[in-house]
Amino acid sequence: MTDLDPAIAARLTRTADGLVPAVVQQHDTGEVLMLGWMDDEALARTLGSDRVTFWSRSRQEYWRKGDTSGHRQWVREVRLDCDGDTLLVRVDQEGPACHTGARTCFDADVLRGEGAADAAEEPGAR
Amino acid sequence: MTDLDPAIAARLTRTADGLVPAVVQQHDTGEVLMLGWMDDEALARTLGSDRVTFWSRSRQEYWRKGDTSGHRQWVREVRLDCDGDTLLVRVDQEGPACHTGARTCFDADVLRGEGAADAAEEPGAR
Repeated sequence: MTDLDPAIAARLTRTADGLVPAVVQQHDTGEVLMLGWMDDEALARTLGSDRVTFWSRSRQEYWRKGDTSGHRQWVREVRLDCDGDTLLVRVDQEGPACHTGARTCFDADVLRGEGAADAAEEPGAR
Repeated sequence: MTDLDPAIAARLTRTADGLVPAVVQQHDTGEVLMLGWMDDEALARTLGSDRVTFWSRSRQEYWRKGDTSGHRQWVREVRLDCDGDTLLVRVDQEGPACHTGARTCFDADVLRGEGAADAAEEPGAR
């Protein structure tokens, strides 16, 4: 049992381990900061307070972002997608979102860059 | 076997069913459009062409976004996060991203809105 509103719980489509991915976005700049996971209880805590709580798959425990690092995420908006299987959490991020110290978890590893489209395009692909 | 660069494949951390979530973002406005799933082959196809390909969990098949709907996603940038378990795909989206006809898959269902932070905040929570 969790404190999640049953009307919301009924709309969720969870993975086999009972989780829903949560995309975290900086509310004003639009930066995608990270992706975390929530079970019903983590979502209830996030909706019912001003801080974001995830379920940590690696540590198997609840994780209120910033409690250890100080890099808190203040909830501005929470949305559910059309299939009920993904959350979009818009926040005000204090400091870096990534444990590496980078602003976002996507800063370091570019697999394919802007402007590479022409080079990668195969003849006749369009 | 897929065509995915082994150096990239080695950096991926996949779910139990061999997938990685891919956050899709409009490259210029920053809108989060949707979340899809990729296996190694879908990622290889996305990196090697100008269109985004997902693995459809419901249909258990590859799905090049827009082939049916015409709402194609043109790849601008692909990034991998710090843990190697999430992709960020920046695209130029043709038309609506959502099968409902909405611009994004997050347009319809606001669980908690902007400005609700004060109302939801419990006394002493800060």
